[in-house]
Amino acid sequence: MTPSQRNPESRPVGALLAPDILALLEESPELIAAETEELHPADLADVAEAMPFEKIPLFLAALPTDRAASVLEYLEEELRSEVLEAMSPEQAAALVSAMSSDERADVLEELDEERAEEIVDEMPDDARRDTQQLRRYEPDTAGGLMTTEFVSVPATTSAEEALRKVRVIARSEKREAMHAIYTTDADGRLAGVLSLRELLAAPEGTPLSEVAWTEVQSVRPFADREEVARMIANYDLVVVPVVSESNHVIGVITVDDVIDAIQEEQTEDVQKFGGLEALDEPYMQIGFINMLRKRAGWLSILLISEMLTTSAMQHFDSEMNAVSALKLFIPLVMSSGGNSGSQATSLITRAMALREVTVRDWWRVAMRELPSGIALGSLLGVIGMLRITLWQTMGWFNYGSAAHTWERVAVTVGCSLVGIVTFGSLAGSMLPFLLRKAGFDPASASAPLVATLVDVTGLSIYFGVAWLILLR
Amino acid sequence: MTPSQRNPESRPVGALLAPDILALLEESPELIAAETEELHPADLADVAEAMPFEKIPLFLAALPTDRAASVLEYLEEELRSEVLEAMSPEQAAALVSAMSSDERADVLEELDEERAEEIVDEMPDDARRDTQQLRRYEPDTAGGLMTTEFVSVPATTSAEEALRKVRVIARSEKREAMHAIYTTDADGRLAGVLSLRELLAAPEGTPLSEVAWTEVQSVRPFADREEVARMIANYDLVVVPVVSESNHVIGVITVDDVIDAIQEEQTEDVQKFGGLEALDEPYMQIGFINMLRKRAGWLSILLISEMLTTSAMQHFDSEMNAVSALKLFIPLVMSSGGNSGSQATSLITRAMALREVTVRDWWRVAMRELPSGIALGSLLGVIGMLRITLWQTMGWFNYGSAAHTWERVAVTVGCSLVGIVTFGSLAGSMLPFLLRKAGFDPASASAPLVATLVDVTGLSIYFGVAWLILLR
Repeated sequence: MTPSQRNPESRPVGALLAPDILALLEESPELIAAETEELHPADLADVAEAMPFEKIPLFLAALPTDRAASVLEYLEEELRSEVLEAMSPEQAAALVSAMSSDERADVLEELDEERAEEIVDEMPDDARRDTQQLRRYEPDTAGGLMTTEFVSVPATTSAEEALRKVRVIARSEKREAMHAIYTTDADGRLAGVLSLRELLAAPEGTPLSEVAWTEVQSVRPFADREEVARMIANYDLVVVPVVSESNHVIGVITVDDVIDAIQEEQTEDVQKFGGLEALDEPYMQIGFINMLRKRAGWLSILLISEMLTTSAMQHFDSEMNAVSALKLFIPLVMSSGGNSGSQATSLITRAMALREVTVRDWWRVAMRELPSGIALGSLLGVIGMLRITLWQTMGWFNYGSAAHTWERVAVTVGCSLVGIVTFGSLAGSMLPFLLRKAGFDPASASAPLVATLVDVTGLSIYFGVAWLILLR
Repeated sequence: MTPSQRNPESRPVGALLAPDILALLEESPELIAAETEELHPADLADVAEAMPFEKIPLFLAALPTDRAASVLEYLEEELRSEVLEAMSPEQAAALVSAMSSDERADVLEELDEERAEEIVDEMPDDARRDTQQLRRYEPDTAGGLMTTEFVSVPATTSAEEALRKVRVIARSEKREAMHAIYTTDADGRLAGVLSLRELLAAPEGTPLSEVAWTEVQSVRPFADREEVARMIANYDLVVVPVVSESNHVIGVITVDDVIDAIQEEQTEDVQKFGGLEALDEPYMQIGFINMLRKRAGWLSILLISEMLTTSAMQHFDSEMNAVSALKLFIPLVMSSGGNSGSQATSLITRAMALREVTVRDWWRVAMRELPSGIALGSLLGVIGMLRITLWQTMGWFNYGSAAHTWERVAVTVGCSLVGIVTFGSLAGSMLPFLLRKAGFDPASASAPLVATLVDVTGLSIYFGVAWLILLR
């Protein structure tokens, strides 16, 4: 069955194979390794996830250490931590040591500190050293994403010699990333890069310095993962080296880790835009209390800010009593401001994330949003006035009174919509810039935050227009 | 200067080099090729973008055809189309033919139909055939993402022979993707896959059938790009083959094209969640009228739906006149419902996009959101009641009247918040499921749409509670 034939809604291969593999595990565990040899570790991880928990360590033990380590890499975070907690530190250390160094650091990061230390203590010396080095970096920086296993050779090496060296590494059990081969100068500093393809294409005998690219895209270990993602995407890279201040390569980041980082970053941004703190865990797996905590903060802040609308309404109480039809349109005009603000905010935060728009563009953006807001507001204003005219002329409701004609009410609503939608578009587009200027993440500009900001001002615009047209 | 030292806000290398290269182009264009040889084509594209438009064709002409084609690949879409329009069809065909087949199809897609046909007519036969085949696929399907240049060999080939063949291709000018080598059976059907690294590691003399993986992840040409992205991310692939119904490889998709697809897909999702149609163009480049069109539709629909709140308020007019303090809290309670709905929608649409949650999980989600909504609503209810109590006891406002005590107003607001936040969480989380069931994209569930839905119901809940507590 090719994957495209699968029902995209179903968890694939793994769940289907689990019963067979479980039966085999009972009867002849020594056959597991051979029987599952052709399966991708991601599928074997699915198999493990479909098993009863106590069987998972047995299943992993039935696989060669290398394979078991790969399966562990693809396991769900929480389950992986539980499995490692259930093993002896020696067993866990054997598995974790067989992972690539970046995965190893991530896995240990998820465990509690004490357990992680126990496992690190049981590792072979070189794996322990690498791990301790990598654990110094935050998981969302280049240093946290990189693996320390890569291939570098002096630039004076000949192409044939380099190829021979690469083949030796490829034949070993090592996990070196080898999409790119880095060349170094006499002091071991990064001098150039060439792809495996370019190495294969190089004429025999040429020194690598003649065929390698010397303008190498690289990042610093403390660079944000968003910056790494942007570089990989811009330059269509499969791998990017991480260099120290002295320009020595200390690790490489491969594209698969960057894709995961892009996905995580995007999940964070969507959740923030929805008006909550990033969950950092899948929705179905996060604890109930933990989820409430992530949601309650913003909801409370927004409620307290929105209380200004109550104060504003108290302030305009006499106006509302004078023209009772006024209050009927409050939700209508307020929500239109929030909606146009939400549109503008989503456009600008995304454009900033993709670096299509930078802080210096704020004036150009404002000069686009101002006419957009006026045009969209005018459209909504006309629709709003038509609604009032229709209800009035059909005799469904009387918006007029002794003190004012219904036409003036309609004009008030129409003009307010122009003002509020214009304000919403401007405020929504400027909020990400203001947040960035104030040192916050512009992605914190959520739809509910914009709506709340616009609500309070929108009420004032509405009553201001009403005062001009109806109440003077 | 390494990239990490650059100001992340600035457009890098390109803009800095443009004046130098422009001067060189005037004085001795024959030196351009050698002087820019070490630069990444993405940087050369930045250089071109910083030039006056009429210089770009001259600059491209000064580069070797292959390099010029790469630069064209990295140029901004709109500019690229303009450059190709400005050239003769023969010139354009020469450049476009030197691109990889997937890029070529994309580039032609952006031109107007007639111009694209003129260029295709001028292409060499084999490039024309490939191009016509690829143009049959929609750009957001696997077929639209794939390139037809890949390496496949019969499974009976020996490792050394295969490596020799790969080196011949690597040394040629061909653009074959060679991160993976595919093996075929006697009928040319896909039999296995091995990475270039595995080919290098294979012992001499072994037939590839012994070292290749036979469980190959593949997609069909009509698969959605989201499905391709998910497969590449799940299995950490660098390349995925596209196979026909008879299991012949017809192309491959490389990870760099998938990253672009993921970014575009995410941009669409963010914009939809913000309450507008996906722009499909960068914010700073889309035409003004075009942008208005993408925003006006949803704004109008939302306004018209929100008119139901006016009808609801007309309906409850006598209640509001009986207890005049009621109207003061309308924006407050309504916005809280919208905010909790927006949170729930962002969580669920994202979880669905990542396949953490499928349609069948709707009941489990509802059973999580119900208690969440009650808990969050209770918190907000308490804050709301405290606000009223504070204002009343400090003497800042009097919420009571002859007919009702202020305490009852406070309890009404508190209970309404519980009801509305619960309803908002439930409605916001169920909306993506309903949209999916109805055959729409669940990502169309925008924050403004949820807020509007919740507003109308929220008003009814509010007046219902008021009737129970205050008006009976």
